Amino acid sequence: MVQKGLLIVLSGPSGAGKGTVCKAMLPTMKTTHYSVSCTTRAPREGEVEGVNYFFKTVEQFKGMIAGDELLEWAEVYTNYYGTPRKYVDDMLNAGENVLLEIDIQGALQVKKKFPNGVFIFLIPPSLQELKHRIVGRGSETEESLNMRFGAAAEEMSYISEYDYVVVNDEVEKASDRIRAIITAEQCSVQRNLEYYTTLIKEGQ
Amino acid sequence: MVQKGLLIVLSGPSGAGKGTVCKAMLPTMKTTHYSVSCTTRAPREGEVEGVNYFFKTVEQFKGMIAGDELLEWAEVYTNYYGTPRKYVDDMLNAGENVLLEIDIQGALQVKKKFPNGVFIFLIPPSLQELKHRIVGRGSETEESLNMRFGAAAEEMSYISEYDYVVVNDEVEKASDRIRAIITAEQCSVQRNLEYYTTLIKEGQ
Repeated sequence: MVQKGLLIVLSGPSGAGKGTVCKAMLPTMKTTHYSVSCTTRAPREGEVEGVNYFFKTVEQFKGMIAGDELLEWAEVYTNYYGTPRKYVDDMLNAGENVLLEIDIQGALQVKKKFPNGVFIFLIPPSLQELKHRIVGRGSETEESLNMRFGAAAEEMSYISEYDYVVVNDEVEKASDRIRAIITAEQCSVQRNLEYYTTLIKEGQ
Repeated sequence: MVQKGLLIVLSGPSGAGKGTVCKAMLPTMKTTHYSVSCTTRAPREGEVEGVNYFFKTVEQFKGMIAGDELLEWAEVYTNYYGTPRKYVDDMLNAGENVLLEIDIQGALQVKKKFPNGVFIFLIPPSLQELKHRIVGRGSETEESLNMRFGAAAEEMSYISEYDYVVVNDEVEKASDRIRAIITAEQCSVQRNLEYYTTLIKEGQ
């Protein structure tokens, strides 16, 4: 019996450090794979096609929506973002875990389709710290910066839709907590009841 | 605001290795404290009063039951076992975690009083392995051994009452999984909703 993999959704307000935490965490996790998103936004410096994102034109992206090829998609700050569905399905069925790093709109869409996913909300130690991080990134105009910060404060109110909150006080500590959550979920009785029922029958 | 500590209940069939896992795990955990049980059974070689158990006469034990000083108690294999209530309450209120290592009868009693406890079921890799371990301990008569093994097989069916199953394939791995479960539970949204609601209000 192959246990299905876990769908781990790492989400949270813009500027919480989702990308940094993923980057630190993934090389240490053998059975957890990063789901690369599609986007229509321009690549930032150093971003690589197929590693950070699949960069698409608006026309290409709309084609994927029409073809039902996306698990979730959203228009955020005038750009489209989405998660290709096939990669996720294939991995989970093979017993491998998939990590989605997505914004809150996307996470809520995924929750409707995968209620058994593990939904993790990454937050900075304080909202003040969040503002510093968004400003520090330096890739935003003042207008888009204010928009992002306002949205982030509002997004905090979505915590109750999630299973776990991880405070990103230090990247290594946050990564350790997420790894612990994955280990714990793999031990969850609810997730493994069928497996253990079989084990008990075989043992008697 | 002091967050209440977690009550972690490590239970499972006799011979699963609860004691060995606790011994390996506790020195590495600063904020998790072992709750020492009372028992009327005779000390095994090397067991120390107040460290492994508080050893009581039957009369003393019945006095504790009458005085409502026990969180749970049970008669197992002609001996009494129980958990002093005060230590657990004091630690949890101070924000410290408490680890109870108890048999299944006791765990089910605790669950009624502490439904928010973290209930972990420790199992050996197979029932065959369980039999080897009980025999290997060498402290039992054949009759009590058969009684224990029969009970262990039956006890496996209580898995569904627990939150987590941890396979004790290797002591270090089992300890790591339990530590991960504690970390994950500390990140649980349900456990921390009040805290985060306050955080959000303060941040806006």
